[in-house]
Amino acid sequence: MSNPPDLIDRLRLIRTPGIGPIAYRQLLLRFGSAEAALAAIPDLARRGGGKVPAICSKEAAQREIGAAEKAGAHYLVMGQGLYPRALAELENAPPLLTAKGNLALLDRPLVAIVGARNASAAACRFARGLAHDLGGEGIVVVSGLARGIDSAAHDGSLDSGTIAVIAGGIDIAYPPENEARQKDIAARGLLIAEMPAGTEPRARHFPYRNRIIAGLAVGTVVIEAAPRSGSLITARLAAEAGREVMAVPGSPLDPRAQGCNQLIRDGATLIQNAADVIEAISSMNGKVASPSRAFEPHTPSAPIETEPDVRLRVEDLLGPSPVSVDEVVRLSGAEPGAVQLVLLELDLAGRLDRHAGGKVSLQSA
Amino acid sequence: MSNPPDLIDRLRLIRTPGIGPIAYRQLLLRFGSAEAALAAIPDLARRGGGKVPAICSKEAAQREIGAAEKAGAHYLVMGQGLYPRALAELENAPPLLTAKGNLALLDRPLVAIVGARNASAAACRFARGLAHDLGGEGIVVVSGLARGIDSAAHDGSLDSGTIAVIAGGIDIAYPPENEARQKDIAARGLLIAEMPAGTEPRARHFPYRNRIIAGLAVGTVVIEAAPRSGSLITARLAAEAGREVMAVPGSPLDPRAQGCNQLIRDGATLIQNAADVIEAISSMNGKVASPSRAFEPHTPSAPIETEPDVRLRVEDLLGPSPVSVDEVVRLSGAEPGAVQLVLLELDLAGRLDRHAGGKVSLQSA
Repeated sequence: MSNPPDLIDRLRLIRTPGIGPIAYRQLLLRFGSAEAALAAIPDLARRGGGKVPAICSKEAAQREIGAAEKAGAHYLVMGQGLYPRALAELENAPPLLTAKGNLALLDRPLVAIVGARNASAAACRFARGLAHDLGGEGIVVVSGLARGIDSAAHDGSLDSGTIAVIAGGIDIAYPPENEARQKDIAARGLLIAEMPAGTEPRARHFPYRNRIIAGLAVGTVVIEAAPRSGSLITARLAAEAGREVMAVPGSPLDPRAQGCNQLIRDGATLIQNAADVIEAISSMNGKVASPSRAFEPHTPSAPIETEPDVRLRVEDLLGPSPVSVDEVVRLSGAEPGAVQLVLLELDLAGRLDRHAGGKVSLQSA
Repeated sequence: MSNPPDLIDRLRLIRTPGIGPIAYRQLLLRFGSAEAALAAIPDLARRGGGKVPAICSKEAAQREIGAAEKAGAHYLVMGQGLYPRALAELENAPPLLTAKGNLALLDRPLVAIVGARNASAAACRFARGLAHDLGGEGIVVVSGLARGIDSAAHDGSLDSGTIAVIAGGIDIAYPPENEARQKDIAARGLLIAEMPAGTEPRARHFPYRNRIIAGLAVGTVVIEAAPRSGSLITARLAAEAGREVMAVPGSPLDPRAQGCNQLIRDGATLIQNAADVIEAISSMNGKVASPSRAFEPHTPSAPIETEPDVRLRVEDLLGPSPVSVDEVVRLSGAEPGAVQLVLLELDLAGRLDRHAGGKVSLQSA
């Protein structure tokens, strides 16, 4: 598998400070190519009222590609080739991923299993068995290579198909005690990372990692999640993406069951075995991974010049409290494309924050 | 509290072989009094094509009343006095009940707690604690005085308010090891029985008992129910009566959790504590125990003579497979009251079987 010809430009675009996945997608939609988007950034940022961001250099992008190649990883490009359609459905889907191992696993039905790092031995045994049984049904298991439930889920599905999404770079083993497991998965399953090779995982990377787990899978099974844990974040992201959320119950007398029991109270499907998972996700057939959202246009389709009065109206509507883009469009009375362009300019100028659920806020000056 | 003047006639009516709660209610609706209904039975049964049933004698009814009085019990008459309105909502509500103890408990919010006889010690502790906490919220706990969960639920609510519905007569202790508990409940809570005093409980009595538990309560909580157990029957009856069904989850690795986990999968509310119960039943306020169904008319309101062609049409529509009365009415093209009268005649003639969900079938000749 060879890298696409414009990989360097795409990499420069997403590695430029202040350009997140949403701005990346907006830029490609508007300018048609990463090259044209890079050329447009200075003007856009100036119009947004900020400094021109330090665009990632060609050399830095080449170094990153070299490091990924040295680690034996390939790039997956949103909207192209093996990049999973289900993941591309996310508004903030990662524009680029590095992947090492059996890429063909991405072409099979994926179910995520996540849970507590300090899970009980019984729950780990359950996770391993569930992953094994799902593998027997042709399902590939996705998890996050953490201690506890994640590790058990990978172990149970290593023979049948397992995908580990890690928070750091593709060549960084984390957590340390999982180094051998991570090697096994890269050799027999598939390892996926969003961060550049060489990146040590930081706390802020884990929610980004969780959105990839939720976005890859048609459904997410949670086992023994503590209240306010990362597993519950993954479950929420799965629900927001319209995926099936499943949880394994436990006795109210067991504190480790509280998170999952609450998920079920909130509407998650109660899961007792692989058959329950199969039944739950069968209702999702055809609901995800359909090409319902255009990844990239073939030609630029939206205005690239903004009328000054639209910019003023949009800026007036924004403040430190997040509001939905749809509401801004409605209240401004302007064309959606024109509003999006103003937001893009503000974003590149470093003045806009993007939040979950398609909301935005303006940083106070 | 004195017995109503027509208690003997009502008792003779419901104790007459072949007259169940539905025929009883139909007869009262049609003939206005138990006395008039008793007089009409021979004609109705003959028109239905069967033998005249052996009507319960005045002496037998007096003996039963004497036995109840000797046991210290009072009669509750459907549609009168303290007879619970929520219970009267059931299509097959018991026309008469005997009750011993604190009748004022019937005037408070009632929640049923039921579960396995061979429950785990942890589940019994949970049931006792839940009953205690519900009592602290002013809720009276209803259960069936069985071993295991039922006994624990009664123990936890004996101080705050507990109602035991038993399958046999009011003066029969069952199960034997619960004799002291039954006495305590009659002294400090309330004991309720549908069968005549002196009746030893038989297997067939327990589903009848379960419908009373489900029908009294605004909601039923199930703890550790085995598949196909009586507790699951109570849950189904509660759901059919439009009441809240609640279940306490457990680990899929615990076989005793299967019934409750399945209930939750089927739509029951997952319950972890008393607050969850309060929240679940708060949505039921005003939905039950409203006088939405007329118990008894003051004057006869329906035809008491049947046209022969309606009888032929209805009999043609019936067979050994249960069909809904609504469907028979629709297909016959006759007035509902006329169809009900034919069904009543067939019932009194011993030729009709009544099933759950308002269905009927005709016995093969």
